[in-house]
Amino acid sequence: MTLEEFEALAEQVNNWGRWGDDDQRGTLNFISPEVVTRAAESVRTGQVFSLAMTLSLNGPQDGSPPPGRINPVRTMLAINTPMSGSPNSARYSDDIVVTPTQTATHWDALAHTTFRGTMYNGFPETAVDASGATKLGIEAAGEIVSRGVLLDVARHQGLDVLPGRFAVTRAVLQAVEEAQGSPVERGDIVLVRTGQASFFLQGDVPRYRRPLAACDYDTALYFHEREVAAVAIDNAPFELLPANVEEVVLPLHVLNLVYAGLMQGENFVLEELATACAQDRRYTFLLNATPERFLRSTGGLVNPVAIR
Amino acid sequence: MTLEEFEALAEQVNNWGRWGDDDQRGTLNFISPEVVTRAAESVRTGQVFSLAMTLSLNGPQDGSPPPGRINPVRTMLAINTPMSGSPNSARYSDDIVVTPTQTATHWDALAHTTFRGTMYNGFPETAVDASGATKLGIEAAGEIVSRGVLLDVARHQGLDVLPGRFAVTRAVLQAVEEAQGSPVERGDIVLVRTGQASFFLQGDVPRYRRPLAACDYDTALYFHEREVAAVAIDNAPFELLPANVEEVVLPLHVLNLVYAGLMQGENFVLEELATACAQDRRYTFLLNATPERFLRSTGGLVNPVAIR
Amino acid sequence: MTLEEFEALAEQVNNWGRWGDDDQRGTLNFISPEVVTRAAESVRTGQVFSLAMTLSLNGPQDGSPPPGRINPVRTMLAINTPMSGSPNSARYSDDIVVTPTQTATHWDALAHTTFRGTMYNGFPETAVDASGATKLGIEAAGEIVSRGVLLDVARHQGLDVLPGRFAVTRAVLQAVEEAQGSPVERGDIVLVRTGQASFFLQGDVPRYRRPLAACDYDTALYFHEREVAAVAIDNAPFELLPANVEEVVLPLHVLNLVYAGLMQGENFVLEELATACAQDRRYTFLLNATPERFLRSTGGLVNPVAIR
Amino acid sequence: MTLEEFEALAEQVNNWGRWGDDDQRGTLNFISPEVVTRAAESVRTGQVFSLAMTLSLNGPQDGSPPPGRINPVRTMLAINTPMSGSPNSARYSDDIVVTPTQTATHWDALAHTTFRGTMYNGFPETAVDASGATKLGIEAAGEIVSRGVLLDVARHQGLDVLPGRFAVTRAVLQAVEEAQGSPVERGDIVLVRTGQASFFLQGDVPRYRRPLAACDYDTALYFHEREVAAVAIDNAPFELLPANVEEVVLPLHVLNLVYAGLMQGENFVLEELATACAQDRRYTFLLNATPERFLRSTGGLVNPVAIR
Repeated sequence: MTLEEFEALAEQVNNWGRWGDDDQRGTLNFISPEVVTRAAESVRTGQVFSLAMTLSLNGPQDGSPPPGRINPVRTMLAINTPMSGSPNSARYSDDIVVTPTQTATHWDALAHTTFRGTMYNGFPETAVDASGATKLGIEAAGEIVSRGVLLDVARHQGLDVLPGRFAVTRAVLQAVEEAQGSPVERGDIVLVRTGQASFFLQGDVPRYRRPLAACDYDTALYFHEREVAAVAIDNAPFELLPANVEEVVLPLHVLNLVYAGLMQGENFVLEELATACAQDRRYTFLLNATPERFLRSTGGLVNPVAIR
Repeated sequence: MTLEEFEALAEQVNNWGRWGDDDQRGTLNFISPEVVTRAAESVRTGQVFSLAMTLSLNGPQDGSPPPGRINPVRTMLAINTPMSGSPNSARYSDDIVVTPTQTATHWDALAHTTFRGTMYNGFPETAVDASGATKLGIEAAGEIVSRGVLLDVARHQGLDVLPGRFAVTRAVLQAVEEAQGSPVERGDIVLVRTGQASFFLQGDVPRYRRPLAACDYDTALYFHEREVAAVAIDNAPFELLPANVEEVVLPLHVLNLVYAGLMQGENFVLEELATACAQDRRYTFLLNATPERFLRSTGGLVNPVAIR
Repeated sequence: MTLEEFEALAEQVNNWGRWGDDDQRGTLNFISPEVVTRAAESVRTGQVFSLAMTLSLNGPQDGSPPPGRINPVRTMLAINTPMSGSPNSARYSDDIVVTPTQTATHWDALAHTTFRGTMYNGFPETAVDASGATKLGIEAAGEIVSRGVLLDVARHQGLDVLPGRFAVTRAVLQAVEEAQGSPVERGDIVLVRTGQASFFLQGDVPRYRRPLAACDYDTALYFHEREVAAVAIDNAPFELLPANVEEVVLPLHVLNLVYAGLMQGENFVLEELATACAQDRRYTFLLNATPERFLRSTGGLVNPVAIR
Repeated sequence: MTLEEFEALAEQVNNWGRWGDDDQRGTLNFISPEVVTRAAESVRTGQVFSLAMTLSLNGPQDGSPPPGRINPVRTMLAINTPMSGSPNSARYSDDIVVTPTQTATHWDALAHTTFRGTMYNGFPETAVDASGATKLGIEAAGEIVSRGVLLDVARHQGLDVLPGRFAVTRAVLQAVEEAQGSPVERGDIVLVRTGQASFFLQGDVPRYRRPLAACDYDTALYFHEREVAAVAIDNAPFELLPANVEEVVLPLHVLNLVYAGLMQGENFVLEELATACAQDRRYTFLLNATPERFLRSTGGLVNPVAIR
């Protein structure tokens, strides 16, 4: 893709001003109360799945850039400390964590990515400073609750894990959607499964990191056409690397986060959910993926939960 | 209450062995798939409420013990850092947080409290060590999704906020439940509202901290009788301090966490949810309060979401 | 002092270009090998004094701005963890700290303060970014070893602690220097004692914080005339607050750090050293106040040691 | 070496009770005022050397155990933040670090290692708990200032770096001491150079980590005979790994820290100092290696400075 084609695509998916000049929620605006009640109706069997990686030193970070994006370090503030001198006193234990917000399972807040000095809706990139994201921070997103739709690309290809460099394109997503019989509707949150997280669950971090399948740039158009509220995937970069527009480095991040105002979720673990969906061929569920609300954060640590 | 009466009450609410000798989920076992589908059925209007405090230096901690329980510190790892040398390169921002797991809105994991050398289900307190809670840590709880029931004690008393030292007793909860017409059923998660969090929302941390109303020790019996899955409140200590069994210091923590295996949520913000419930007199909702899964943590940082 | 007078004073103490356009050490350049050997010659009785506050949650921070400048939090990574399964295995304990670099006893790196877009030697303030101080960071200072001279203002006034708002002026320092018979020479590091740290040692953090005596703006001229290498004091703000040039807020910081290239040390504990100096009336010593070398840090955590 | 021989050696170097039952400083007690003045007399040319690694994400840790011993993460609390709304306001930058105390250049506090339930001087290992080292923590060491003696083993062998698995034995240290003509005296701090840190300075962390030369177990006897105050080396493990008494895993740690009460310094960078010493064949200097005084810490972050 040339830079010109990229710019044309950016124009197509651009949502700036669509929900007002002050809007900071982007495509999350597609989630209406009706969408939420429709989501609740997809709960049939009462199954509940966490889509999060466990947070520990054995997380997906291996010291590679971005600098400082370490695995979480959790230590004890107190271990069985008595509340009084009496042998009948309750004792308590407390702990504290040091963790990046973009480690393990997380949302990219809209402020996470900027392009040519600008963020979503035309906010200047200077709105992110040492104090954090004064615009488009994770708290601006609010609650992220909607109907989730799993697009299980790996299973559709008859594979446990998609091969490295496999490009999940718009056409691929359309084909999966149709084959599954699970049309994506306005306000849905799409979960794209490549199967990659199975390596993480097996404890193989190097293999989890590379090689991997990911979304190609034209999926931005797919998400735009379907008017999805948010989208998440079971790997770390979300998009193909190196990308097809090398100069931009992360063209899909720019298309989704900056132009469409569409939040991206990364490192979502979809294995168990996918097995359940395949068993009864129901690919929709109530998804609550509301992140921890660290003020002005550019990332959203989250334990997403699917209820079906 | 004498120590003997406390011990008798502990015996009454004791659930050790009820779900097997290896059980680490306690009363969360009351949540069956049927409970979850019933919870989903309480979604009518598609309203969504976060019950979390925003995580920032302006949190509820003021330097008081427990030592080290600070407010979260969030700093930037990168601010609009270009991914390449091209002016057309995407730029990214990242951040990192230092946060106790028992600061702001959180669950006490069952490992948080021990009594006479023992934790829930008879696990020895030595199962909590420098590596964390090897038993009853937050990851052992798994997903926390059920029907939530708001017991709005403050509104029932005709007050915005209950007065300091007001004892929320078993009888009080029964009265609220009845007046609201919202019977608590097996597997429900009960949210007790004192109105205290309104001070926090107003930015008045000292007033939020003290004085306050809280649960009295005999509510342990109420939770036991109703077979609730978990319980949360809109203040920090959960129970009356100083408590009626001074020697134990935190008798209700011991009854709930150690004997019943009932997790307690603290610093839940119930103001908006309560207003909505009062408007249409529906006090039940789907509650997802699944915490961040920091391995072996004794606390569960959480952004609880109520959907109704 | 008017802004014009401030600007005139800035011109007087300006050292930009004095040690070359690339210089990042400022007045530390006054320390020659001869100064170091002279410093060693001041060691007579073999007494050694640490001038640091102990680093703990009981540090001098009380939640006041600057935001995030907390007291250090230290937790255990391991407690008596065996290295092998044998009962004869060594066991180890490890810990980890979270600490601002400007908490407790520290140096302000030259990058700590900027004025009208510029730092010392004309470096643009943009040299400090999310990655830290790419110019004038603490590692640029290198070793800080010289002869130290205590100017014990409190004792000179016949007081244990100077009264609040007492202005330590150029004239005051001259008077103390003369009375003590300890002329300050080129390359010396001056330690100014107000006695304030005695409150900290007594555990009274509020009293330590305010009210307090501090350096007045014209001491910048004194330090310039004496060609001192660095200067430290036994309180946190170093200079009088509110300052005599309100618009600048921290005029002495600007004069010293930005114009003179003179590093300031804060929260130095001088009580024991001062007692020893008073006893034998020797006010000079070998001072090693080389800070921890956190790359690109704007502050220098330090345990200064005086040897006499 | 058999376990019996190890125990016999432990008996030989045992200093328990030597300085009283309450002593927490161990061999640092060898440093008298006379030793300090002797140290100052070794300052001749006014040269100053820092022996510390720069603290950054590019430190010597590579994710290997011990768990949580990460490289330091430093982030900004403020970047050029104005103190007031005026264009003439001073601006400030602040930062914060997360760092283990045993990362990079550090001392092992006496509490760092325990053996068969006991620490130096018979203190029970339970004196280290979640609150830290209540005995033998780094603050108990106090100031660490003495004469330093470099034993440049690599140069004595005619090598830049000793080969992997080279055993620095008692005999080797005796030979170096004699060849250099620099007798080690009571109260000296010995710095053992293997040349290994040159790999770190070149940015080759893997090579820095392994393979490496280190001290053999019988050096404990050498340090004991010479009555040295402390000892440091230019690698991370200090002693040969795997050790000659496999069951103990770290026999020299046990001999030095637990039995002799001799603190060990690790990751000291001796390259520049060694070059200077070789040039004028003076191997002694004033050494200040007083660590940051984090209360109850089992490790001592330090920027050691040699003055000669």
